[in-house]
Amino acid sequence: MSNKSKNPKEIKLKENEGIDALNDNGLKIIQNRNWFSYGVDAVVLANSIDTKKGQELVDLGTGTGIIPLILSSKTSLKSIIGIEIQDELAEMATRSIALNSLQDKITIINQDFRDLSNFKPASYDIVCSNPPYFKKNAAILNKTEQKIISRHEITMNLSELFKSAFYLLKNGAYFYMIHRPERLVDIFEVSRAEKLEPKNIRFIKSNINSPAKLVLIKFAKNAGRELKFVDDLIIYNDDGSYTDEIREIYSKNHITSFSKS
Amino acid sequence: MSNKSKNPKEIKLKENEGIDALNDNGLKIIQNRNWFSYGVDAVVLANSIDTKKGQELVDLGTGTGIIPLILSSKTSLKSIIGIEIQDELAEMATRSIALNSLQDKITIINQDFRDLSNFKPASYDIVCSNPPYFKKNAAILNKTEQKIISRHEITMNLSELFKSAFYLLKNGAYFYMIHRPERLVDIFEVSRAEKLEPKNIRFIKSNINSPAKLVLIKFAKNAGRELKFVDDLIIYNDDGSYTDEIREIYSKNHITSFSKS
Repeated sequence: MSNKSKNPKEIKLKENEGIDALNDNGLKIIQNRNWFSYGVDAVVLANSIDTKKGQELVDLGTGTGIIPLILSSKTSLKSIIGIEIQDELAEMATRSIALNSLQDKITIINQDFRDLSNFKPASYDIVCSNPPYFKKNAAILNKTEQKIISRHEITMNLSELFKSAFYLLKNGAYFYMIHRPERLVDIFEVSRAEKLEPKNIRFIKSNINSPAKLVLIKFAKNAGRELKFVDDLIIYNDDGSYTDEIREIYSKNHITSFSKS
Repeated sequence: MSNKSKNPKEIKLKENEGIDALNDNGLKIIQNRNWFSYGVDAVVLANSIDTKKGQELVDLGTGTGIIPLILSSKTSLKSIIGIEIQDELAEMATRSIALNSLQDKITIINQDFRDLSNFKPASYDIVCSNPPYFKKNAAILNKTEQKIISRHEITMNLSELFKSAFYLLKNGAYFYMIHRPERLVDIFEVSRAEKLEPKNIRFIKSNINSPAKLVLIKFAKNAGRELKFVDDLIIYNDDGSYTDEIREIYSKNHITSFSKS
């Protein structure tokens, strides 16, 4: 594989960091063993985005930079911007981009996406986000407080997320998000209020008979009201092996799960 | 079967009407061949409602009276009220109740459910509805107008439906509705605005791999925000036969599809 010729020694690793393979394209990512590792959420989201050559995309809350990395290896986007508020994560993501020599395609910006006044409005073709599910901080509070604050935060943060996506997107352009099904009412309430109308929805299930564990939604800026259901994405076959679609997602090819319906 | 002793001749049938068997309990229903016949929607909805002995239920837009009929034969509800705005449908439903000698349990009331001032507020244990999907009238208009008016009507009627359900229900009590998945954003928007919070959701699919064709939702009056997904209800097996769950629904036993999760 061509990536073998690159020398990872040029990229310094910090304590508890390791380099992990991302997919069959030879992509690598730096992850910190004490933080979170990327999950199926980010991979599924990245592979659900319809892209055209030359388009510009922004990933809100890019974390380790996994979504920009996957998209850069599988699509012909002109530029991908990953915005990350946490200094250490943004710095680590920047090193992952360098590790894969993708600095010409991907830019990691360390800033709060709630203030994007340094970005040109209504100028981006695609915005995506795999937002945090807001469980961590709430866990230290007692259960009643946790519930209240967790719910409060979700509404607040979702609203800010949609405001930022709306700000960046061209009229009619798409925002892709993956989230937890339990929050669907909040998501729909806030997205409609922020004029990002849900157009396509897809549930992700561990097994064909289990309830949805994740939900993938495609919103369009200032669009008409019509929600289309795409057949569920199932992760495991009955025998515990990955389904063909999940195998395809981890392969070299970019698949767009919304357009196949 | 005990119902055989009843004499259906006492119930007069009008032109184009026929008597159909409803389920294994010997229940019968009068339907008009020129109008609509009941579908899986009403049957699934009726069988998804959790009931306790002695409770009182109101069905908004009862049509042929199918939901009250099924519930009366399978549950121990104290009283079931079916409200229907269309004179002829309400009259036919009343004859169906008499045909099954269920006048002591079911009352069909011919009125517009948008004004329920003759009903005591916050007094009912359960409200349910299988609302019309608002396609018929719109079909006579051209396609653009149809879309606009259809959407406009949906929002309006959903809002009225939720207002009426809220008015009737005791605090914390449940409203059950079946509708089309395409309207989920509208449904969530309106239900939250009307303080009927979606608590459980279940998608209904023709086949295990097809997208959802119907959605069953359980709302609670003035409740906290938490949406729980129940595993999908599949209608047909791969070989075209009914699934076990659908067979069970058409059997004598009342099943509650939300409580089994």
